[in-house]
Amino acid sequence: LCPEQVPAPAETDGGLFTSIFTTDAVAAATSDGAWLQAMLDFEASLARAEALCGLVDPAVAALITAACRADGFDPVALGRSGRLGGNPVIPLVAALRQRAGHEAAGSVHLGATSQDVLDSALMLVAKRTTELIAADLRRATDAAVALAEAHRDTLQVARTLLQQALPTTFGLRAAGWANALMDDTERLDRVRAHDLALQLGGAAGTLASLAGRGPEVRALLAAELGLGLPPLPWHSDRQRVVALASALAAVSGACGKIGRDVALLMQTEVGEVSEPAAEGRGASSTLPQKRNPVLSAILLANSRRAGGLAAIVLGSMDHELERSPGAWHAEWQTLTDLLRAAGGSAGLAAELLGGLEVDAGRMRRNLEASGGLVLAEQRAALGAEPGETADPAGYLGSAGAFVDAVLERHRTGAAPAAPAAQP
Amino acid sequence: LCPEQVPAPAETDGGLFTSIFTTDAVAAATSDGAWLQAMLDFEASLARAEALCGLVDPAVAALITAACRADGFDPVALGRSGRLGGNPVIPLVAALRQRAGHEAAGSVHLGATSQDVLDSALMLVAKRTTELIAADLRRATDAAVALAEAHRDTLQVARTLLQQALPTTFGLRAAGWANALMDDTERLDRVRAHDLALQLGGAAGTLASLAGRGPEVRALLAAELGLGLPPLPWHSDRQRVVALASALAAVSGACGKIGRDVALLMQTEVGEVSEPAAEGRGASSTLPQKRNPVLSAILLANSRRAGGLAAIVLGSMDHELERSPGAWHAEWQTLTDLLRAAGGSAGLAAELLGGLEVDAGRMRRNLEASGGLVLAEQRAALGAEPGETADPAGYLGSAGAFVDAVLERHRTGAAPAAPAAQP
Amino acid sequence: LCPEQVPAPAETDGGLFTSIFTTDAVAAATSDGAWLQAMLDFEASLARAEALCGLVDPAVAALITAACRADGFDPVALGRSGRLGGNPVIPLVAALRQRAGHEAAGSVHLGATSQDVLDSALMLVAKRTTELIAADLRRATDAAVALAEAHRDTLQVARTLLQQALPTTFGLRAAGWANALMDDTERLDRVRAHDLALQLGGAAGTLASLAGRGPEVRALLAAELGLGLPPLPWHSDRQRVVALASALAAVSGACGKIGRDVALLMQTEVGEVSEPAAEGRGASSTLPQKRNPVLSAILLANSRRAGGLAAIVLGSMDHELERSPGAWHAEWQTLTDLLRAAGGSAGLAAELLGGLEVDAGRMRRNLEASGGLVLAEQRAALGAEPGETADPAGYLGSAGAFVDAVLERHRTGAAPAAPAAQP
Amino acid sequence: LCPEQVPAPAETDGGLFTSIFTTDAVAAATSDGAWLQAMLDFEASLARAEALCGLVDPAVAALITAACRADGFDPVALGRSGRLGGNPVIPLVAALRQRAGHEAAGSVHLGATSQDVLDSALMLVAKRTTELIAADLRRATDAAVALAEAHRDTLQVARTLLQQALPTTFGLRAAGWANALMDDTERLDRVRAHDLALQLGGAAGTLASLAGRGPEVRALLAAELGLGLPPLPWHSDRQRVVALASALAAVSGACGKIGRDVALLMQTEVGEVSEPAAEGRGASSTLPQKRNPVLSAILLANSRRAGGLAAIVLGSMDHELERSPGAWHAEWQTLTDLLRAAGGSAGLAAELLGGLEVDAGRMRRNLEASGGLVLAEQRAALGAEPGETADPAGYLGSAGAFVDAVLERHRTGAAPAAPAAQP
Repeated sequence: LCPEQVPAPAETDGGLFTSIFTTDAVAAATSDGAWLQAMLDFEASLARAEALCGLVDPAVAALITAACRADGFDPVALGRSGRLGGNPVIPLVAALRQRAGHEAAGSVHLGATSQDVLDSALMLVAKRTTELIAADLRRATDAAVALAEAHRDTLQVARTLLQQALPTTFGLRAAGWANALMDDTERLDRVRAHDLALQLGGAAGTLASLAGRGPEVRALLAAELGLGLPPLPWHSDRQRVVALASALAAVSGACGKIGRDVALLMQTEVGEVSEPAAEGRGASSTLPQKRNPVLSAILLANSRRAGGLAAIVLGSMDHELERSPGAWHAEWQTLTDLLRAAGGSAGLAAELLGGLEVDAGRMRRNLEASGGLVLAEQRAALGAEPGETADPAGYLGSAGAFVDAVLERHRTGAAPAAPAAQP
Repeated sequence: LCPEQVPAPAETDGGLFTSIFTTDAVAAATSDGAWLQAMLDFEASLARAEALCGLVDPAVAALITAACRADGFDPVALGRSGRLGGNPVIPLVAALRQRAGHEAAGSVHLGATSQDVLDSALMLVAKRTTELIAADLRRATDAAVALAEAHRDTLQVARTLLQQALPTTFGLRAAGWANALMDDTERLDRVRAHDLALQLGGAAGTLASLAGRGPEVRALLAAELGLGLPPLPWHSDRQRVVALASALAAVSGACGKIGRDVALLMQTEVGEVSEPAAEGRGASSTLPQKRNPVLSAILLANSRRAGGLAAIVLGSMDHELERSPGAWHAEWQTLTDLLRAAGGSAGLAAELLGGLEVDAGRMRRNLEASGGLVLAEQRAALGAEPGETADPAGYLGSAGAFVDAVLERHRTGAAPAAPAAQP
Repeated sequence: LCPEQVPAPAETDGGLFTSIFTTDAVAAATSDGAWLQAMLDFEASLARAEALCGLVDPAVAALITAACRADGFDPVALGRSGRLGGNPVIPLVAALRQRAGHEAAGSVHLGATSQDVLDSALMLVAKRTTELIAADLRRATDAAVALAEAHRDTLQVARTLLQQALPTTFGLRAAGWANALMDDTERLDRVRAHDLALQLGGAAGTLASLAGRGPEVRALLAAELGLGLPPLPWHSDRQRVVALASALAAVSGACGKIGRDVALLMQTEVGEVSEPAAEGRGASSTLPQKRNPVLSAILLANSRRAGGLAAIVLGSMDHELERSPGAWHAEWQTLTDLLRAAGGSAGLAAELLGGLEVDAGRMRRNLEASGGLVLAEQRAALGAEPGETADPAGYLGSAGAFVDAVLERHRTGAAPAAPAAQP
Repeated sequence: LCPEQVPAPAETDGGLFTSIFTTDAVAAATSDGAWLQAMLDFEASLARAEALCGLVDPAVAALITAACRADGFDPVALGRSGRLGGNPVIPLVAALRQRAGHEAAGSVHLGATSQDVLDSALMLVAKRTTELIAADLRRATDAAVALAEAHRDTLQVARTLLQQALPTTFGLRAAGWANALMDDTERLDRVRAHDLALQLGGAAGTLASLAGRGPEVRALLAAELGLGLPPLPWHSDRQRVVALASALAAVSGACGKIGRDVALLMQTEVGEVSEPAAEGRGASSTLPQKRNPVLSAILLANSRRAGGLAAIVLGSMDHELERSPGAWHAEWQTLTDLLRAAGGSAGLAAELLGGLEVDAGRMRRNLEASGGLVLAEQRAALGAEPGETADPAGYLGSAGAFVDAVLERHRTGAAPAAPAAQP
């Protein structure tokens, strides 16, 4: 008795733009087919869990399981039929009953309601997609850490409000990126461990039609699906969805910050870093000699979108009584898009950081170009005269120590420094 | 020489959920295929416009035009290739050059930049989709007006903060819906007339590669495409996009208000209206006797989503210099979704209002159930005693006059009452 | 009998941050005192309008009018009392009745409901504040136009995706700013003329307690307040509020774009423009030699905030039945903040553009620094060899013509070029 | 040597509306005065930490500490002066230097930059305010738990999509509220423990002007202020701010859900619960007999606002290089408003739940009114005939068990059920 969690089908939908802003793997893991398979995994696992409890004949559960393969269903047809009931579950269950055969039909979807299927499917799609995202975040982190290590002492000018300020190191900047990515990964891991949970409550959230066997079925089903077991159904309590959305927006945002920095440092007039070279990467449709920060542009676009998308669910937690007309329905496309934005950003940030070209010479020259200006503070501190030579490498303060703290965190996996004792 | 604006292909993408929340016609008009066709319409029309100016051989323009049919292109493949350049235009132009043939290749995309193609395509997609939306808004308005007229004197209790207040009429409520829909239609018409404009500026917004012929090409191209001719390119001035997004969000919002009202009035305990009956409409996956407000739920979902989606573009107008890395890229999916939300809502609002079942008897009974309470104000006004009969129909104030004003507006097409003279 | 529209009191609230992000005039026009005065103007004008209809004794109306001065009321106390009823009108009316005296008390607020007062006050506050904003937008436009005219032929390099592309002129960039500001002004003027309207409907939106005199009172009151007269009350139809919010967000956004450009062009490595010099302007708390783009930072901050603020009202149009519990209440602070953001941005944009320092020499040098690169397209066009001199001034395409079109629009006040005839 | 964390001054700003939507305590803790005091606490603690390191004379640190009292400063004047530098720190430091005296002036703000002060102040304001919020959340939770316990078996009809479905209990609904509030409290506690951290990096984030003593000063200062000690400065890494904003929006959202439910259950036609009675609570300005769900309205308003406010920071994480012009500045008012919304909602939810009036008889009657309908599922399950009596109390499934699980969580403080083991 093992869950039928076949890999999501490879085809993607909404390909023209989705394919630009997310990775192929995430596009597949959030495709219509992946959603359908997640719903069917729920139905198959439910039948098996109910078989274990004696509510369904094991042979019937096997028939249902066998019928629960997404590749025979047409997402568009299901969507259109779903308009009548406001969700795709009703036609899906009807089709599944037909496919499972007369004998099994009555045992399909036993005790469940549409929202059980869709919420659990959302959690499964999120679980599978965030696994990809977490892996990409770790790759991105490793790359940022490698940059921080390699450039621990590479001089660069700090720019505040886009004006040159004092010397810093490129390593410190990369350490900042790495630290944010580690924060994001921890938060996403926490969401994966605590917030991705089974939904099963039946029509009224009481599991009435399972009589007293509800808790038993829930526990078995959660184990089958590898989802958490919440204390009670959460049909109209959207904390979990909001925690997921917030974590995904933070991932997009942290990657957007990297994109912003790279796009700025890659400006023609600055030229301190460059996106990784690839055949055709960064090309312009008119100016063949131009090299555009296209990965950065995608990171920035996903970041801008993520804020507004997250607002949709954060501002719509007021789900009415036992099931909301509208606030619930607004989640499906929104979370799909948030998963794609975060997933695309994590994957492309890994690619960007992994191949980032750093021009330490240009950094040094840019720093020295206005050296007299940026070192005014140092001179004041040291009592040196305007005419005297000032060495920017001698005015880096704790930059190295900060880089080392991040490297240490990465090496030990330790959480950020414990907060001070609070009175 | 006529524009090659073939109808958008019928297939849709992202079908599982899109098909629920928007109409088939709008799904098609905003599909990957529709976007591709709009981009190709731009390229074909550009070649023809340049032929008229003598910049391109007319025979070559005909070859290009013939090649500009979306059905041979693969959106997913273009999207994936587009990731390298940050947009799908570069691979599309490359493929188009190949398809147009060696002789014509050099004249494809002449003088244009990627953003010219995508912005103009957005405007074309918006033009075609808002035509559908405007038609559905007019259908919805007609239905609301018919309800207002038929129920001009149908008594209903007004509910403020969800508490019964004083008597009103169902006609006044419907007149409010109709008036909002007329406002939306006017605003959308204004956007269609003023904001949907050609984008053509070339790599730097100067049309340098067209030498002095730029203005001439722009004028001809705008006419070819049926788009407005703006005073200058607007690559990083997003007023038009924001005007469109705001108008679409307002459409979704006005329809969401209708959905909210209907869902509330359709509550089991209220039962004053009912969504139109249809085979399978409003069914539950578990409770077959239940009739859910599913059209209302979809209207509410679209309305909630529209706010966050609009925020993405409204908060991202700070496009950098001549072309933004990110803020521009964030628009394509967002506007597609806004068109779908507004289009779905307009279409479903028309369906909802066109078939709304009104239970005037239940309205009367609900009003009378707490009649003593709701008429306390009337009694105070009339000096009547608590025990005396008070007739709610005698306490409707100007409800009828307000309904008539809306009917008059609908009949005459007159703009809302002119504002008072301002000192 | 003239309206008691005394200037809003000068004190501001929330001063620490509000004073940074908005102008003193707008802070005053949106202060607690200004809101209170607007509510009181409504009550005073209502009494006078009802006096004209014979519903209130003219002497009583005069007493009420005399009592309607904000300076005697305590906003915090009213707010705290207002928590009980969910809005500040109930305690305000109670206090006003007391202040107007025993004889007049019964005629205060006659026929109106709390939302009549607050919605009309919002419209009055918006009317007064947008008058300031429109004036600042015109100042900003004039300054942008002056820059466009003065620098019509000042060479600058265009930067797309933050990479140098082809030559353009600083005049074309300034013309783009000016054109957006003119669009904003027109939209705001339209909102002022069409959307700022009286709210008067009474408890149920029927004006029942005014018997048949409702329409007459409404017309007189609208004229008194200088607000538009809508066909019917709009308590739960928020098109007007959303139109206002959208227009304000667009103002913030267009100014944010100017801020983005100036901050980028003012970078140490670019140095092509500089914010106007002022004692202390742009200072750093640590680096006295630094000059920060602080006006730009404020414009960008307001722009980022405006998107999320607008989303609140755009996503909350689903007001329940005759009066919403919550969606309505969410508007007051949100619109206040949007007025402040737009007003601050318009005022500071005028200041920024009016004093912008332009370094044409640096523009020329930056262009030439990578001249070989940016002119590759030109050479290809002209058939020139890499070694040959290419004159960027000879590759400006229609830049001058575009600038002239904007200057013409400014001079004639003509709307943007008429759209092409639509089939 | 103990921190001078005097209670924030009691006066509030923006009182007219703020006083409605938040509690007096939260208004005070987020007032201009509280912000100023937090900034001054930072400056005083910095001086003392530097005294401990030998960088500042202890007597001078005492002078600075003595001068760091907010009550002598004028927020509006500081805000206006702050417009020149884009933040209020520059004039505040100047004024503080003057107040501390000639001898101490040079030691004020030593090594810090404006963002160090403002970010740390934000963290302090957040720490102090979230302490209030957490306490209110616990009060609200206790009240919800008490309702769940008292009404564990009180029959009520479940309503899905606002239609009556099957029987449930009011206890299960209250348990759902309680569970969400416990989730919120845990998340807020985690933010308090992990995300509220010191900011200290100096002009470039390297603490260069403190030479090698930076890390030592940071550790002492974090301990002084009771804030966490992060591995490195986070001037342009806004994970902490976003974590805070997300947690606050979730608090507002969970309370908004309670408000939504109460407003719906309190409808005239439903009448199953009622907001706590209080003199003047829920009054209408026109209908004295009416009792409005005003606490619910405020909860719903805060919830709607919180989504859009959170979007501002979630969509603006792309802070430029070492300090952002604009994205940073957009946070101050936004976080203030989010603290107020969450704080108001937590406090008012506690008040609402603590005094909620539950009408079990009306619940029973509403359930029975459509009993034939809602029990169709039960009859099918039991094989009973339409005519036979069906007892809703016999069809509650696991409702009681779910309530018990939440009561157990509340009693033991245990985290939600551990997720199933993941393969």
